[in-house]
Amino acid sequence: MSEPKIVVYCDGHEKMAESVRNAECPIEIMAPTTREDLEEAMVSAEVIFGWKIPPHIYARASHLKWVQSMGAGIDDLVSNPHLSPSVIITRVTDQFGPAVAEYVFSELLANVRHVDRLRRQQNEGSWKPFGVQSLAGQNIGIAGLGSIGHEVVRKAKAFDMTVYGLSQTPHHDLVDHWFSSERWKDFVGPLDYLVVALPLTPKTRHIVDNNVFAHMRPGLTLVNIGRGEIINQDDLKGALLSHQISGAILDVFETEPLPHDDILWRLPNVRISPHIAGPSLDERAAQFFVTNVHKYLRHEPLLGLVNRFRGY
Amino acid sequence: MSEPKIVVYCDGHEKMAESVRNAECPIEIMAPTTREDLEEAMVSAEVIFGWKIPPHIYARASHLKWVQSMGAGIDDLVSNPHLSPSVIITRVTDQFGPAVAEYVFSELLANVRHVDRLRRQQNEGSWKPFGVQSLAGQNIGIAGLGSIGHEVVRKAKAFDMTVYGLSQTPHHDLVDHWFSSERWKDFVGPLDYLVVALPLTPKTRHIVDNNVFAHMRPGLTLVNIGRGEIINQDDLKGALLSHQISGAILDVFETEPLPHDDILWRLPNVRISPHIAGPSLDERAAQFFVTNVHKYLRHEPLLGLVNRFRGY
Repeated sequence: MSEPKIVVYCDGHEKMAESVRNAECPIEIMAPTTREDLEEAMVSAEVIFGWKIPPHIYARASHLKWVQSMGAGIDDLVSNPHLSPSVIITRVTDQFGPAVAEYVFSELLANVRHVDRLRRQQNEGSWKPFGVQSLAGQNIGIAGLGSIGHEVVRKAKAFDMTVYGLSQTPHHDLVDHWFSSERWKDFVGPLDYLVVALPLTPKTRHIVDNNVFAHMRPGLTLVNIGRGEIINQDDLKGALLSHQISGAILDVFETEPLPHDDILWRLPNVRISPHIAGPSLDERAAQFFVTNVHKYLRHEPLLGLVNRFRGY
Repeated sequence: MSEPKIVVYCDGHEKMAESVRNAECPIEIMAPTTREDLEEAMVSAEVIFGWKIPPHIYARASHLKWVQSMGAGIDDLVSNPHLSPSVIITRVTDQFGPAVAEYVFSELLANVRHVDRLRRQQNEGSWKPFGVQSLAGQNIGIAGLGSIGHEVVRKAKAFDMTVYGLSQTPHHDLVDHWFSSERWKDFVGPLDYLVVALPLTPKTRHIVDNNVFAHMRPGLTLVNIGRGEIINQDDLKGALLSHQISGAILDVFETEPLPHDDILWRLPNVRISPHIAGPSLDERAAQFFVTNVHKYLRHEPLLGLVNRFRGY
């Protein structure tokens, strides 16, 4: 049996191919860097370890058996009509939780402890003590209790917050108050912070819209670390401008990069980051793939297997 | 028996006297606001709930039995020659841990997640993803394992850090690696972060000096939430300028306010805050005092009792 041909394509991140190569698996690695080379390599590829491959290019991959995404989100793959339903899709799991939760708490703490103001005062060399708020005792809700949601819950408990959770599968033991995904309005009512850690599926697209914003407290700060499309971004802007909610911490957007002239950049109490909450393209993804390659070669179940019907 | 006379004096924080008054204890409250009124009130005071009372004024307090400090630090009281050794000193305990630990992690996370850079990029409306570091797997050392140190340990574990601790009393179960207070050099050797949460005593004054800096890794970031005088501030500046250590997060200083022309304001990788890590003057201190007043009236042991010989 010949070695399986594996295409590693990651839109300019050549380090990724290098990491896989260094692992010395019994595989043939193709690491095209141009669109033309990618199209040619797809024809014979059995496995793809990829990121941001143009959807139609999958139409050429007639020998394809498995696609390992380099990130946690695979909505683009699941919805790709050019990708045969028989192809296995895996995503990187259990690698994102700690990093994404660090992002969430870096911004929540920057908010309550006024880190920006401290730096401004420091730049002026001015000693002006001021009062701060605390996360302790605040109500935090996490929508989506996968590996990322779990980590946010864990850290929220270490900060003595009261934890609300919403998910399809019951998680009564994990959080203080659990809500099924039909109960968004009850779920958001008591929250000071709402963290959206859901996957993007047809069911979750624009799930947070004016109908849900209407049930939030004016003091609420929304945190989106899932996907931009989960939140109706126009409704979000309206909710911020009308003080229906107090602020937002956004790492993902309906259009990325967020256009330079978008008002979100400039709204008060909005914190923007350029989709860097999770380490989607780092060594850990390569390590995850290498582990999966060994399982693939031994015909063992792969890690991070995506249920294409469920969408995550 | 007449009601005990209690002086509440807090250097302009009249809210504190109000909070105590609202608790409606069977006590007579005197809340002088001028220096003259304070001196007069001291003569008949049995209890003082105070903050920044000039040391010599205690010489007038011949009926004094108990001083409740409004903060966690009581080094100024313990070393006051005008305060009779028979007077009981209590400090506010178990109130500071969560708030101070939130300060520590707000700054540690701002550091590894480049929160300042995010805000700069946001102000420019520029979408520029970048790589970030993580606290997970890093070595954090906490010098001083009182109620504040305990909270820092607890949160460090939630961030999957490896926790080193140094204290007089053994705490093998609390931390991953425990060191007695004679073993500073071994303690600091492996650390990425050193958090100083010690009380100021004759033993801890300038305990962190060039002899200790010499054993630190160049990547270390020092965090001081104890007292400025625990660290030799000139040695610290030298260690920062010579890249003996990588950075410092400082809430306390040998002289406060930190003088406007001090180079610490402007050194790279130094984060300054004006002694606001702990909520020394808030409602919680008043609540703590009221709890103690009830114990005092019932002749029960007081909370936060200071061992004046030990110095904390």
